[in-house]
Amino acid sequence: MEDKPTFAVQDPEYTRRVQDSFARQGLMKLLGAKLVGLEPGTAEIRVSFRPELTQQHQYFHAGVTGAIADSACGYAAYTLMPADSSVLTVEYKINLLAPAEGDELIARAHVVRSGKTLKICSAEVFVRKDGAESQCATMLSTVMCLTGTSDQSR
Amino acid sequence: MEDKPTFAVQDPEYTRRVQDSFARQGLMKLLGAKLVGLEPGTAEIRVSFRPELTQQHQYFHAGVTGAIADSACGYAAYTLMPADSSVLTVEYKINLLAPAEGDELIARAHVVRSGKTLKICSAEVFVRKDGAESQCATMLSTVMCLTGTSDQSR
Amino acid sequence: MEDKPTFAVQDPEYTRRVQDSFARQGLMKLLGAKLVGLEPGTAEIRVSFRPELTQQHQYFHAGVTGAIADSACGYAAYTLMPADSSVLTVEYKINLLAPAEGDELIARAHVVRSGKTLKICSAEVFVRKDGAESQCATMLSTVMCLTGTSDQSR
Amino acid sequence: MEDKPTFAVQDPEYTRRVQDSFARQGLMKLLGAKLVGLEPGTAEIRVSFRPELTQQHQYFHAGVTGAIADSACGYAAYTLMPADSSVLTVEYKINLLAPAEGDELIARAHVVRSGKTLKICSAEVFVRKDGAESQCATMLSTVMCLTGTSDQSR
Repeated sequence: MEDKPTFAVQDPEYTRRVQDSFARQGLMKLLGAKLVGLEPGTAEIRVSFRPELTQQHQYFHAGVTGAIADSACGYAAYTLMPADSSVLTVEYKINLLAPAEGDELIARAHVVRSGKTLKICSAEVFVRKDGAESQCATMLSTVMCLTGTSDQSR
Repeated sequence: MEDKPTFAVQDPEYTRRVQDSFARQGLMKLLGAKLVGLEPGTAEIRVSFRPELTQQHQYFHAGVTGAIADSACGYAAYTLMPADSSVLTVEYKINLLAPAEGDELIARAHVVRSGKTLKICSAEVFVRKDGAESQCATMLSTVMCLTGTSDQSR
Repeated sequence: MEDKPTFAVQDPEYTRRVQDSFARQGLMKLLGAKLVGLEPGTAEIRVSFRPELTQQHQYFHAGVTGAIADSACGYAAYTLMPADSSVLTVEYKINLLAPAEGDELIARAHVVRSGKTLKICSAEVFVRKDGAESQCATMLSTVMCLTGTSDQSR
Repeated sequence: MEDKPTFAVQDPEYTRRVQDSFARQGLMKLLGAKLVGLEPGTAEIRVSFRPELTQQHQYFHAGVTGAIADSACGYAAYTLMPADSSVLTVEYKINLLAPAEGDELIARAHVVRSGKTLKICSAEVFVRKDGAESQCATMLSTVMCLTGTSDQSR
């Protein structure tokens, strides 16, 4: 298992830039998702259980798992991008390891490789039940940096 | 490009079984998604644009794209499963090909290979804008059949 | 199932450029792979059966399937790149649909979306046995164009 | 980053069973690959540089990277399977993080989740150059256990 690499930020105001972008995502609000952790190259998103977020067996729907893991990867990558850039998911792959049965879903993402144009990210998703966390999914994703474009006006 | 294979159904009541399962998914209701096409080995899911479904640039969020493409793959596979089975997504990979800017998002899935335990599925996602459809994503997924388990009680 | 799009080439000498690059790949020679089809946005690679190419059941090894499908995707993308560019696989995902038992393995790739920096490609792999082809794998891949770099000197 | 889980073996003779299967893979012999590490739920495969294993820039070909990472995942999973079983890769996704330039390529795989039928595996691939290792790829794969079938006779 590799150690997490450390990364230098290009934009000292990255926290505000990422939080502003997250706040503009209508879907994160609809899901009740919260961006609770943010460091250079990492991001954590949490969402509490509600019946509106379920699949047919009343567990968290894989669509929620995928959505918050994808957003966590994108924002982990976005912490390392310059001020005048926007972030775009190129692709991701997710393995659903166990039913997401619990009170809260937690996606923790980190940048694995930080290229200038592409950032490769990984996310682990956990479900918390009766106070204990267990892993329910793992994601591998490719995120693109579009420079010279504001994340707000695109 | 391969022709779509034709498949024999094992459960003549598959339409009702799939629609019942879809109706129990709280997330599909929250997104406003509709299961509009269902044939042996294929499924189509549509969702209309709302600001609640957006990413930061006010296009459809990739989380919505992934969620309906995943559900379409799962239900395309579920049409071919026996009556006393439930359906489980093992994993999927999605490439986001273009911004999902438009009035409606349409995921069309079909089974590529139908094994007894695993079904390999593919989905193409289109966005409709001003009456014209353009492709915005493609998914490849692995879906598992759990026999001897009801989709309702699991 | 989408129609294959048509693409404009940027380098009229693309055939020679792609064939030169293929000829420099030691692994393709070791596998006995041949680049037999090449059109704008498509490529086909074939390899004949030998015991040296097998997995433990004496079928074609998935490593051969993956290698020729990856190269076919890369060269399908490379047909559309400018003269002063080199090609790089960012990532791929492959589903192995059936045992690759037969006399010849055939990977047919095409570009699904041709962006300036990234090309999204798909490949279907077939195995020919007793004169009949059947599909044994499907790949989805992301290929990057590095401009201002020669494919030879990098 | 999760801790590696520990797994119980079902077949105390797993080492011999895995090594026998590896020895029957013609491709691993052709590549010069060696199975050097094997513990319950983990496997390591190494291959030394030769010009026959290159892509067009004379680095290790991604096909070699994919082949040994796939085999390492399959054999990491196979350590945990019963005696009368065979192993099958369902699918994998690989991200190529950096050019594989060096003297030796090393794939280290471990099982992430061990279900009865499916094992989800992860592999990290490193390239050793001038004595130092750097990561060049990461893989996520789904491996299937076929029980009641000998790995030799299938």
